Amino acid sequence: MRFAQPLTLQGGATLADYTLVYETYGTLNADRSNAVLVCHALNASHHVAGMYPGDKKPTGWWDNMVGPGKPVDTDRFFVIGVNNLGSCFGSTGPMHFNPATGKPYGAAFPVVTVEDWVNAQARLADQLGIAQFAAVMGGSLGGMQALAWSIMYPERVRHCVVIASTPRLSAQNIAFNDVARQAILSDPDYHGGDFYEHGVVPRNGLRVARMVGHITYLSNDDMAAKFGRKLRNADDYKFGFGIDFEIESYLRYQGDKFSEYFDANTYLLITKALDYFDPARAFGGDLTAALAGTQAEFFIASFSTDWRFAPECSREIVQALVSNRRRVTYAEIDAPHGHDAFLLEDARYMNMVRAYYERIAAGIGAAAAPISLGRAA
Amino acid sequence: MRFAQPLTLQGGATLADYTLVYETYGTLNADRSNAVLVCHALNASHHVAGMYPGDKKPTGWWDNMVGPGKPVDTDRFFVIGVNNLGSCFGSTGPMHFNPATGKPYGAAFPVVTVEDWVNAQARLADQLGIAQFAAVMGGSLGGMQALAWSIMYPERVRHCVVIASTPRLSAQNIAFNDVARQAILSDPDYHGGDFYEHGVVPRNGLRVARMVGHITYLSNDDMAAKFGRKLRNADDYKFGFGIDFEIESYLRYQGDKFSEYFDANTYLLITKALDYFDPARAFGGDLTAALAGTQAEFFIASFSTDWRFAPECSREIVQALVSNRRRVTYAEIDAPHGHDAFLLEDARYMNMVRAYYERIAAGIGAAAAPISLGRAA
Repeated sequence: MRFAQPLTLQGGATLADYTLVYETYGTLNADRSNAVLVCHALNASHHVAGMYPGDKKPTGWWDNMVGPGKPVDTDRFFVIGVNNLGSCFGSTGPMHFNPATGKPYGAAFPVVTVEDWVNAQARLADQLGIAQFAAVMGGSLGGMQALAWSIMYPERVRHCVVIASTPRLSAQNIAFNDVARQAILSDPDYHGGDFYEHGVVPRNGLRVARMVGHITYLSNDDMAAKFGRKLRNADDYKFGFGIDFEIESYLRYQGDKFSEYFDANTYLLITKALDYFDPARAFGGDLTAALAGTQAEFFIASFSTDWRFAPECSREIVQALVSNRRRVTYAEIDAPHGHDAFLLEDARYMNMVRAYYERIAAGIGAAAAPISLGRAA
Repeated sequence: MRFAQPLTLQGGATLADYTLVYETYGTLNADRSNAVLVCHALNASHHVAGMYPGDKKPTGWWDNMVGPGKPVDTDRFFVIGVNNLGSCFGSTGPMHFNPATGKPYGAAFPVVTVEDWVNAQARLADQLGIAQFAAVMGGSLGGMQALAWSIMYPERVRHCVVIASTPRLSAQNIAFNDVARQAILSDPDYHGGDFYEHGVVPRNGLRVARMVGHITYLSNDDMAAKFGRKLRNADDYKFGFGIDFEIESYLRYQGDKFSEYFDANTYLLITKALDYFDPARAFGGDLTAALAGTQAEFFIASFSTDWRFAPECSREIVQALVSNRRRVTYAEIDAPHGHDAFLLEDARYMNMVRAYYERIAAGIGAAAAPISLGRAA
């Protein structure tokens, strides 16, 4: 969907014109009360569930969560996946032509924030005629967007589902992001962000960025169980700088794969959106105050071995919501897979989300106060 | 000290000729029973304590630990610091001339292991006439060397002091090391290890390598307390890819500084020595069996917030020693500073080491079985 109305961003820049790519699943009901917005995290997109013609297996990034009969049941809900601004999967981003210069934006693409994404998503909802979402939902960076929705558009969110997320990045989180950024920015093939016109890609930088990121998505224990010190196709050390251990092979493969499809400028933008998210900041660090205006009911979930956004981050959100007398369900799930757990199959986790969405479904069509569209942020 | 006798390394290569740089502190007593070998970790050297002429403050890396009246009291002990093979601080390393080619070794410098270092150190001890050390001591990678000494030269180690170390790297540890290696290896200025002859240094790679390493040396809590989300000389976000947060400024500074003095080939070698260390490997993973031949008395210490080599790594060593009926003192120190704690001032830690060394001192000069020098590994 193309938007001709300029969007002023939190950083002060304005996008004169932009396109959002989105996908929908299921059917919007007559009173438009069954819409669920699913917000994506770092390397995902609008393609939340299912498969495209030619795909051999489901390629949606949350296909285990969203679909007919799945926890977010598309036989009941009208689910929307929207690709965020700055992404490399279709919505306006750094690789697109900058109308002001006629060249790709490159590093000139403005830094976008979680709040900017939410404003852009709200305009999409306006155009789709969705005044209020049955739920806004996301994991990790997607959970930040859901949380921001509940703050910025309180009357447009009936339920807010925030999984494996945090109210703000820690110094350690920022540090890992900055390592990734420095790897990209210092790659000679980055060319100050204008690598498109040089016909190259800062592949080495992206690869290292992804490798370090990937370590933080997995738990130490899970890595030990899956890889341990297993050698790769060998009985002994090779005494060189090639691959000795399975974990090296796995990580380099993840890095290589990522560097072939992901855009370096997008990676930089997304790490900044993560770093900057901090709704309590405008309230002197008081998260309770930041959440005081929310009206949604909340489902918050965290995973025991997630050391990127550890359970205490979620507990802090829960505490602030409880202080505000909000209805909040909190699930702290004992799962071995670290931060990645939010994307993985886990019966307890899936059953919790399923149960919560059954409750959301039970409320669909209930009388709601009339809501006007297009409220500004 | 120059060694003309070839040294065959664990990987099969032979160093025809090599030099070890070492420093000593204190005086060797008449019966040569008060020698302490201090083994260094990643970016340290033989310069353990004190200052050189022209230094404005003590520049030894363990100056708070070693010196007159310090926990390892050089009024009582004869302390030896030795720079390891492959280092960039004086002992034969990749930047030195390869007698076989007349050019710097570069990537042709053989991969060296903890065990290789110990064999080289043992030859130095032979030359210094030290049949048995009162103690062999080290933190982190230095602790691995101390542990290897107790296994490889059991009758030459009276006390083995292993601090913030581990019997083997985890998959996560190896993963972080491989990120660092990939950052260096993929830097175009690395030139396959032969950057010396190109007059450049793979500074960007080294910088990223150091940044990611540095994160693992600090604890999450300590980083939060020291840096949190504090902005660097600003009241608001800058909405660009420069420095926003103090933690970014700190890490980049650490990376920059490191890249100016450390050698990239040395960094690669040292990460491999870390990855390969696994004395239990030759015993089917049985650490108790690996430590069965030790004769030393052990002091093992770990730090509560060290997530690089967590207390459970030290506990595993303790358990294996206890199973072998060895005398072992274990200190698990509640300290906020993560892995770096082993280098930092902490009264409880320092007092423990001091007390242990007083006990070692009390045993000096006690009758010891005659020991022959030069035992092969």
